[in-house]
Amino acid sequence: MSKKTWRIGVAGLGTVGGGLMKFLAVQPDFAPAGGRAVVTGVCARSRSRHRETDISALNWFDDPVALATSADTDIFVELIGGSDGPAKAAVEAALALGKPVVTANKALIAEHGAALALLAEAKGAPLLFEAAVMGGTPAVKMLREAMVGDEVVSVAGILNGTCNYILSEMEASGRSFAEVLAEAQRLGYAEADPTMDIGGFDAAHKIVILSALAFGCAPDYAGAEIEGLDQIELLDIKLAGDLGYRIKLVASAERSDAGVSVRVHPALAPLDHPLAQTSGALNALFIEGRRIGRIFIQGPGAGAGPTAAAVAADIADVMTGATRPVFQRPAVGLPRLTAVDPAHRQGRAYLRLQVRDEAGVIAAVSETLAEERVSIDSFLQKPAHDAEGVPIVLTTHAAPEAMLLNAVRRIAALPSVLQPPRMIRIARV
Amino acid sequence: MSKKTWRIGVAGLGTVGGGLMKFLAVQPDFAPAGGRAVVTGVCARSRSRHRETDISALNWFDDPVALATSADTDIFVELIGGSDGPAKAAVEAALALGKPVVTANKALIAEHGAALALLAEAKGAPLLFEAAVMGGTPAVKMLREAMVGDEVVSVAGILNGTCNYILSEMEASGRSFAEVLAEAQRLGYAEADPTMDIGGFDAAHKIVILSALAFGCAPDYAGAEIEGLDQIELLDIKLAGDLGYRIKLVASAERSDAGVSVRVHPALAPLDHPLAQTSGALNALFIEGRRIGRIFIQGPGAGAGPTAAAVAADIADVMTGATRPVFQRPAVGLPRLTAVDPAHRQGRAYLRLQVRDEAGVIAAVSETLAEERVSIDSFLQKPAHDAEGVPIVLTTHAAPEAMLLNAVRRIAALPSVLQPPRMIRIARV
Repeated sequence: MSKKTWRIGVAGLGTVGGGLMKFLAVQPDFAPAGGRAVVTGVCARSRSRHRETDISALNWFDDPVALATSADTDIFVELIGGSDGPAKAAVEAALALGKPVVTANKALIAEHGAALALLAEAKGAPLLFEAAVMGGTPAVKMLREAMVGDEVVSVAGILNGTCNYILSEMEASGRSFAEVLAEAQRLGYAEADPTMDIGGFDAAHKIVILSALAFGCAPDYAGAEIEGLDQIELLDIKLAGDLGYRIKLVASAERSDAGVSVRVHPALAPLDHPLAQTSGALNALFIEGRRIGRIFIQGPGAGAGPTAAAVAADIADVMTGATRPVFQRPAVGLPRLTAVDPAHRQGRAYLRLQVRDEAGVIAAVSETLAEERVSIDSFLQKPAHDAEGVPIVLTTHAAPEAMLLNAVRRIAALPSVLQPPRMIRIARV
Repeated sequence: MSKKTWRIGVAGLGTVGGGLMKFLAVQPDFAPAGGRAVVTGVCARSRSRHRETDISALNWFDDPVALATSADTDIFVELIGGSDGPAKAAVEAALALGKPVVTANKALIAEHGAALALLAEAKGAPLLFEAAVMGGTPAVKMLREAMVGDEVVSVAGILNGTCNYILSEMEASGRSFAEVLAEAQRLGYAEADPTMDIGGFDAAHKIVILSALAFGCAPDYAGAEIEGLDQIELLDIKLAGDLGYRIKLVASAERSDAGVSVRVHPALAPLDHPLAQTSGALNALFIEGRRIGRIFIQGPGAGAGPTAAAVAADIADVMTGATRPVFQRPAVGLPRLTAVDPAHRQGRAYLRLQVRDEAGVIAAVSETLAEERVSIDSFLQKPAHDAEGVPIVLTTHAAPEAMLLNAVRRIAALPSVLQPPRMIRIARV
């Protein structure tokens, strides 16, 4: 094993960067593969800001590209974030010089991963991003390295801790989405602008990365279907619970002969299912392989400690001298998989309707479903709780998604249905 | 990435070896790191035995050492099994020549891992054994590679699928240990001589390996405390269920300032706990790190497909050219950790007593416990079901193990206690 000292340049000293500096400060002999890792250069927005670790002895760079290309940087660690701008410029600059890059930037890898992988492999530079998905829980390594002796057919899980925290809190406290979100923002669990999390875009970045690793294909963020959490009401959480389910924001990628389906959407998971039991800021993932079968992995999805540990593990991987494809297969000729036509998908659904409390309503709804060949699995009508009609909920058996959507459209048009129906898919888990 | 062809020599063509041959036959272009892997030589007990894949075109070796040292073998794959004998001789011979070794042999690594790691690292040869623990579920890779940026304080889980299958079947069918074991043997889920599984030795091999990876120490099989499943009665499974627990064979390794505690024993896990919900032949593991927190991983622990996939992933790792320590830290100077004195351990326990149905018994039992400063958490007395007294069960709060054992010894000597008490620990999970 090499006794070399690796000089690390760290761009971005926020939560993850600060956590990494702290880790290397308390473990200055970090030498997992024989060599030693030492931070020599840093770059951040403000040089003078108070930090937990002293950076005064390190080389300071105002420009991340300058740090990435510095002759003193053996490994460039990008913790700036953002799919474009300085993060992308600096990563490209490092790879172009054949320098190993470690990043926690999910947006960058999800949106530009194929081009970056080509550059990395052409220059023989490792490009690692364990911290981009599930924080310290090594989903990336599992898919890229441990599953190469198998053929992965699907990955599905909970990849956004903020959404999962909000859903858990709504259920536990009986408060509305807006109230819990506001509290999460006060506590720093949610960003001031929560769109990336709440809208499902953060989870989509992550599942796009995992799908590329799982299927050995180019990451295709544009091909992902994304539905966020913003329409989930407390009433749905309660009614789903009455039916034996819990609502989760599920990210999934499935491969079939028809192509690939990469999605993020709220979904009902049975209460005794491991996804339903993944609460608070935890993340969880199922990996299904043809030979291995089903692997489940659960752990903290974010936080300075776990994410910094993932960055450190990537640095260690660079130090071992391993060369392997960025997305499980060589980047040259990495296939782009066709997105499956949603109309061809089968699935079960939960439907909530607000209807007039009068005779014949249920008959009309169930007839409409029958005409679209959607059959009902369970049905629940609660006593009316206000003057604006009564809520009824039902779950369906598996049906083509096109027919489900047709049925929902037609039910919405029934005179006794007072509000647009709320449809939430039931997780295929 | 290297375009090299790696010639693989496979010793042992049983379940795992056969699975590997089948995998490479259906995926002849297996080239995860750019290079290609091709089996060129094999060795097994019988050359003529019918096999699923045709081996007639491959070089045949009667002696695994000859295959290991053949000039045509670039990577030696040892799937013979057994801690000594030909498996050990062949692995040593390959490593001595600096050849990479991939093995599924848990006994070999648990019992001779420290010496083999020294040899491997001295010769610069990778020594990989993902398939030795949890089959296709990559526990070894997670601990060796993903956790290097953290400090692991404990690992605990279910590592023997045969025992877990037997416990699940006893509970589901209400049959005795002996009946279920006999059936498992008929179905091929348990060996003709089930001692390794039932006695806890297989799980002990595995947790010893995981503890070495987790703590960066020499594997110490002799230091493991091992208690098997052979004394578990159906009655305990039922009574534990009444108290809200399920009995599992739990393998655990904990590190503290006092040293390390590596154990296998039956233990009660709360019904809603992921270990309690790991049923049949599944395996599961908790990894607890100071920075990352708690990671849970669950998957198939055995079988030709999963285990062969793990061997293939190790072959891929060799092909990447990575060099890293066998047990997370360099083998030279790998610490041997002191085993914690069991007397200093704290824990909770389940106690089942068969007592005479007469006044004063419970008072005598609870007084004895109080005198040893063991306090009772819950208590259950069922109506007498036969003439030989009544069973009472209780669970304790945490107490020093020495005091628990003292109390059990004293309770056994009480005149109204009819059989030796049955003590089963409650999992610290």
